[in-house]
This record gives sequence, C-alpha cells and structure tokens, in this order.
Amino acid sequence: MASSTHPNAPCAACKFLRRKCIQGCVFSPYFPPEDPTKFANVHKIFGASNVSKLLNEIAPHQREDAVNSLAYEAEARLKDPVYGCVGAISVLQRQVLRLQKELDATNADLIRFSSDQNTLMMPQSSGNSLQNPHMLPPNYGAYSWNYNP
Amino acid sequence: MASSTHPNAPCAACKFLRRKCIQGCVFSPYFPPEDPTKFANVHKIFGASNVSKLLNEIAPHQREDAVNSLAYEAEARLKDPVYGCVGAISVLQRQVLRLQKELDATNADLIRFSSDQNTLMMPQSSGNSLQNPHMLPPNYGAYSWNYNP
Repeated sequence: MASSTHPNAPCAACKFLRRKCIQGCVFSPYFPPEDPTKFANVHKIFGASNVSKLLNEIAPHQREDAVNSLAYEAEARLKDPVYGCVGAISVLQRQVLRLQKELDATNADLIRFSSDQNTLMMPQSSGNSLQNPHMLPPNYGAYSWNYNP
Repeated sequence: MASSTHPNAPCAACKFLRRKCIQGCVFSPYFPPEDPTKFANVHKIFGASNVSKLLNEIAPHQREDAVNSLAYEAEARLKDPVYGCVGAISVLQRQVLRLQKELDATNADLIRFSSDQNTLMMPQSSGNSLQNPHMLPPNYGAYSWNYNP
C-alpha cells in the first residue's frame, strides 16, 4: 500500500527490504517513506519478520502504538546496547523511591511542626492541624521492577 | 560450551535451536539449560541472530547485563504486545510527576505553616523555621520521555 503522503513511493519497510509495497502491506501505515530510520532501527533490533508477526497478532487500532513502542525500544537499545530502555526503568524507579522518601520526610516534618504548634498554641488550635491534605498513602513499591542494573 | 551445572547438557539456546553447543558458544554462559523459557522469550522477540550479533558487539563483562535486560524486555513484550516495557516507563513517569507534585504541595504547606507560626509566635520563633531540610530543587523533568502511551 503506497503512503498517502507519497502516493507512488513504497513504504520505508518495503524500500529497505527491496520488495514491492503491495496493497494491504502490514508495515505501510506505520513506516512512511519519509522516515527510513524508524524501520531501519526496528529491523536491526527486532527483525522485520518478528515485527510483522507481532503486528498481525495485534488489533489494527493498536498497531500504531505497538510500532511506536517498538521504535522507542529499538532506539534505546541502539543508544545503550547493554541496558536499552531497561536503563530508563531503573533510573525512574530510583527517582520514585527518592521522591517517596523525600515526601515521607516532609510529611513527618509537617506533622512534627503541627504537633509543636498545637502544644505551644493550644488555645488557638483549630483541632485539624495534623491533617495534611497532601499526605499520600504508602504506595511506593506499587511498581516494583526486579531488574535493577 | 557445556553449562557448569549440567556439564554434558547443551545450553538452552543450542537446545532450542537444535544445534551442537560448541566450546565458546556465545549464548552458553547466559542461557543455562535449566531455564529454557529465558532463551525462548528472547528468541521470539529479538531473534537468535540479532541477540548473537548484539552479544558479539558488547564487552564480555557486560554481556550478562545485556542478556538480562533483553530477557526483561522480551518478557514485558510477551505480556503486553502493544506497549511492552515502554508501558512501565509511562507508568513510572506518571508516578514521578505525581510524587513531585505532592512534594511541591507538601513543601508549600510547610512553608505556609512555618510562616503562620512565625506570625503568631514571633517571640518564640527560632528564626529558621522556614528552612525545610527535605525541600528538593525543582528536578522533575530530568528524565523526560517522549513516548507516553
């Protein structure tokens, strides 16, 4: 199937694979000829055959998201052959743990502050100063990834 | 190269590919025969040939990490064919943004609290109650990922 932006051009996948881009080509809607790198990356990391199989197993309305996530993973693996996008997961996990720790500490400060104020200012206390509307339930670890390079 | 735990058994990759596991097999140290799923997953998503190429381009001391990250990505893609482990990145990004927002709000509460206390309790003020040792610099966005399924 020819791309809508280049009606006579084969898609980037068919051009790369040097084959005819037929009507109903599974790659064509997601690999336009003007972005040859997207297919080259995905092909290098996953292989055209694996991508084709994957796309055929996914509902058409989800294929664009699937191709974009494959392209993201492929680019990450080319930039970092050892960790790929798992490196990003590890960094984000550490960031979540650090932020949760900071939040716990800040909430503890707020409770202590509030408690001190209640002790010192008993007559003025509103009675709800221990309530922190921004306090979170202990939810870190909700996304716990085993791999931690 | 035969695995140390099963000296006569071929590695999981050679067993899967039905080939002889020779001395110096690039897969053998990372795909022991007792874990056939690890290779099956990686082969299904990346292809044995791509994995072999990747391993040969990486320094030996980094190959175990590379295989483990590939196995992690492969398992994630098999569980979620549309987003794979990019889905985890998206969830973690949202978690980081939410935590940073909560932390900013809690820090603002603490500053307001401290300011109120200073106003009410001027004679008792220690003079440093505006200092929050847990306040963070505005660092979210340090890991900003473009893909957000």
